Amino acid sequence: MQMLEPSLVHHADLQSIHGQTTMSIPETHLPRVVVIGGGFAGIELIKKLANKPLQIVLFDRHNYHTFQPLLYQVATAGLEPDSIAGPLRKLFKNIPNFHFRYGLVTAIHPERNTISTSIGELRYDYLVIANGTKTNYFGNQKLAQLVFPLKQLHQALDLRSHLLQNLERALLVKDIDEQQSLMDVVIVGGGPTGVEVAGALGELKLHVLPKDYPELDFRQMDIHLIENSNRLLAAMSEQSGQKAYQYLTERFKVNVWLNTRLVDYDGREVTLSNGRKILSRTVIWAAGVIGNLIEGLPNEVITRGNRILVNEFNQVKGFDNIFAIGDIACMISEAYPNGHPQLAPVAMQQGRLLADNLLRLLRKKALKPFYYFDKGSMATIGRNRAVAEIAGIRIQGLFAWMVWLFVHLLYIIGFRNKLVVLMNWVWNYFTYDRATRLIVRPFVKEKMTT
Amino acid sequence: MQMLEPSLVHHADLQSIHGQTTMSIPETHLPRVVVIGGGFAGIELIKKLANKPLQIVLFDRHNYHTFQPLLYQVATAGLEPDSIAGPLRKLFKNIPNFHFRYGLVTAIHPERNTISTSIGELRYDYLVIANGTKTNYFGNQKLAQLVFPLKQLHQALDLRSHLLQNLERALLVKDIDEQQSLMDVVIVGGGPTGVEVAGALGELKLHVLPKDYPELDFRQMDIHLIENSNRLLAAMSEQSGQKAYQYLTERFKVNVWLNTRLVDYDGREVTLSNGRKILSRTVIWAAGVIGNLIEGLPNEVITRGNRILVNEFNQVKGFDNIFAIGDIACMISEAYPNGHPQLAPVAMQQGRLLADNLLRLLRKKALKPFYYFDKGSMATIGRNRAVAEIAGIRIQGLFAWMVWLFVHLLYIIGFRNKLVVLMNWVWNYFTYDRATRLIVRPFVKEKMTT
Repeated sequence: MQMLEPSLVHHADLQSIHGQTTMSIPETHLPRVVVIGGGFAGIELIKKLANKPLQIVLFDRHNYHTFQPLLYQVATAGLEPDSIAGPLRKLFKNIPNFHFRYGLVTAIHPERNTISTSIGELRYDYLVIANGTKTNYFGNQKLAQLVFPLKQLHQALDLRSHLLQNLERALLVKDIDEQQSLMDVVIVGGGPTGVEVAGALGELKLHVLPKDYPELDFRQMDIHLIENSNRLLAAMSEQSGQKAYQYLTERFKVNVWLNTRLVDYDGREVTLSNGRKILSRTVIWAAGVIGNLIEGLPNEVITRGNRILVNEFNQVKGFDNIFAIGDIACMISEAYPNGHPQLAPVAMQQGRLLADNLLRLLRKKALKPFYYFDKGSMATIGRNRAVAEIAGIRIQGLFAWMVWLFVHLLYIIGFRNKLVVLMNWVWNYFTYDRATRLIVRPFVKEKMTT
Repeated sequence: MQMLEPSLVHHADLQSIHGQTTMSIPETHLPRVVVIGGGFAGIELIKKLANKPLQIVLFDRHNYHTFQPLLYQVATAGLEPDSIAGPLRKLFKNIPNFHFRYGLVTAIHPERNTISTSIGELRYDYLVIANGTKTNYFGNQKLAQLVFPLKQLHQALDLRSHLLQNLERALLVKDIDEQQSLMDVVIVGGGPTGVEVAGALGELKLHVLPKDYPELDFRQMDIHLIENSNRLLAAMSEQSGQKAYQYLTERFKVNVWLNTRLVDYDGREVTLSNGRKILSRTVIWAAGVIGNLIEGLPNEVITRGNRILVNEFNQVKGFDNIFAIGDIACMISEAYPNGHPQLAPVAMQQGRLLADNLLRLLRKKALKPFYYFDKGSMATIGRNRAVAEIAGIRIQGLFAWMVWLFVHLLYIIGFRNKLVVLMNWVWNYFTYDRATRLIVRPFVKEKMTT
């Protein structure tokens, strides 16, 4: 059995693919903006810099943009991976002076205005750090090997295959504890990802899996949601958190454990801080994120959660030509003493403002400060149910769910992807089915201790 | 760098997943039909046995049926993998007495009417071998490690990622030979798969890749098609073969090498039997198939290409209750002295007839012999072009292409998949685009010698 940590393998790949090569970005008279990361922040920035007198170089370790808010639907067999990803070259294919490089940035050298990458060193005039966050295991390396994160496309596919393979195995075991451990799922983290994946698994359990596995009794399949604080959806109102709790517990019989932490996991048995033990081969880790820190910046600009301290123009503290935007940036203000929430709208707005500010810099004009326009937030809990807070108005149930669908469709990259996602949603809605339940990975992260 | 042979890993997985388990197929009073393989033959058989007084057990090492004729479109970024695969449990979800088992059959024991599998031993009353073929490397193990087959879904995804990653790398190399080796593609085998993949790569080269990679000169990208015999599409008429040759060479400038074999390949340099050498990191192997032989049958029933000799009722020679259908079966007749062509229509017709014959056996009635109703064959070569031979009528060009589209849509499993494939085709046709060019595999088969 091969033991692979997908993200590690991915990096190894890039290095071996690139080998001894040269960067081959042409030197022009235009100032060069190097952007690290093609997430929401990076792509909004580049879109607004299209056809401006700048050379743009984008680095990403994937050749596509991932629409992260819908990753959980890939993991729960509702959507194809391709429909929530946008190839970066395609996205920017008609922009002159745009160069995409498929590679990993390994260090920043502010003293000489260069970066080191898996394909060599590159000079920049302006550097934009927009490489977001990764799953935070709080330093627990054992846990990192045993649980399933949900931040990248291949992780969602791994989880999908793992869930389905465990059900295939559950059919074959006689031991009731073993069967339980293969069917039960523990989700750690009661934020939007945890709540949405719990709802999606609840739907699978109610409507899809019993038809596929008539030999299994799905009353046995318990879904547990573990949250450290005293409520779900901490970033939203108390009322929305309570409604989400109600939807999850009443409709899907999800066991929500508030004020509870996971204290140990051996790949089979979860131990909670309240002493309870749960047998589960599938722990989904949605408990927090940490910045994808690149070495080379001074320690004093790094703050809690490995975020980078920036001023109101998204300039990294102490630098004129290095910027950080999106989830990795921490802009402390009176309204946001801990920085902005790590959400797509913040990233997009910072990307767009920075594009304007870079153009202002070129024209030697004064920069404009960032103000977050909070359009609200939302989370869906199975079919017909969601909670949403938009411009201070709280909505719940069917109407919130429709708003959620509409907003997510709106932000998926590309008309074709919108169409495919819409079609899948309509299909899944009316058939109570999930289309894509394939075990298609040639390997699984093997998490079994026995 | 991890070195993984995907199919090997896949098997290792199954064994580790299954571990110490029991088969848990209930013993009933109904005769048990065990079917090995959920390809065209197996699923047609099971569909017709639904709701009949038989217990059906299907084994497959994937949990989905693959629509192999369109694998090449997944490899060339035209279709999502999910749209050409049908989850087997979903396909047969309303059939009582049907049991799917995700596992590998390792041996047949005709003397005691059982099979050994990765999840234990199982008794059968009737055994149907329908596990098809795999890529034939003609015993060349070195080649098997270096070339790309195109028989399974994960192989198509590997090839897609490999092609795109090589272009990313081609951007970075200065050495012209090295760049050439990263861009050129060699396809071995001038049958339908070879011809269709050559056409699809031609389309990519003409319409898609130059927009994605403005820094590369795609006049450098050579596509070579190597065929041992003196013509393409040997299973079709001389005229169709010539037309395919004309389409490939005139429109896409594919270098077709007839009467030529690949004699050596080191991962970078291809040596042809005519002495010519071609630098290419991508050799697609469509040169032939060989039966997926399972041990336990006597040697005298195994014939050329590891096919199993059957009588006119698809009974394996010398056995009353063991049958072989589809590509792995070899039924010698006057009309087909080497057995039938290894095509989906033969498999489907044999599956359906065997269903009838099994019911006749139960009723102690005489079996009906198999006659192949040849509906014709076809191959597409890029947009608007195809060759088809239907009921003796030869058509070419746009009309043949439309027939090809229609027939393939018709046979894809499931209404939803038909819809998604149709939508993708319409989209690709009018936009001259390919939607799914993601490098999504967390690893590549590393084939570089330098």
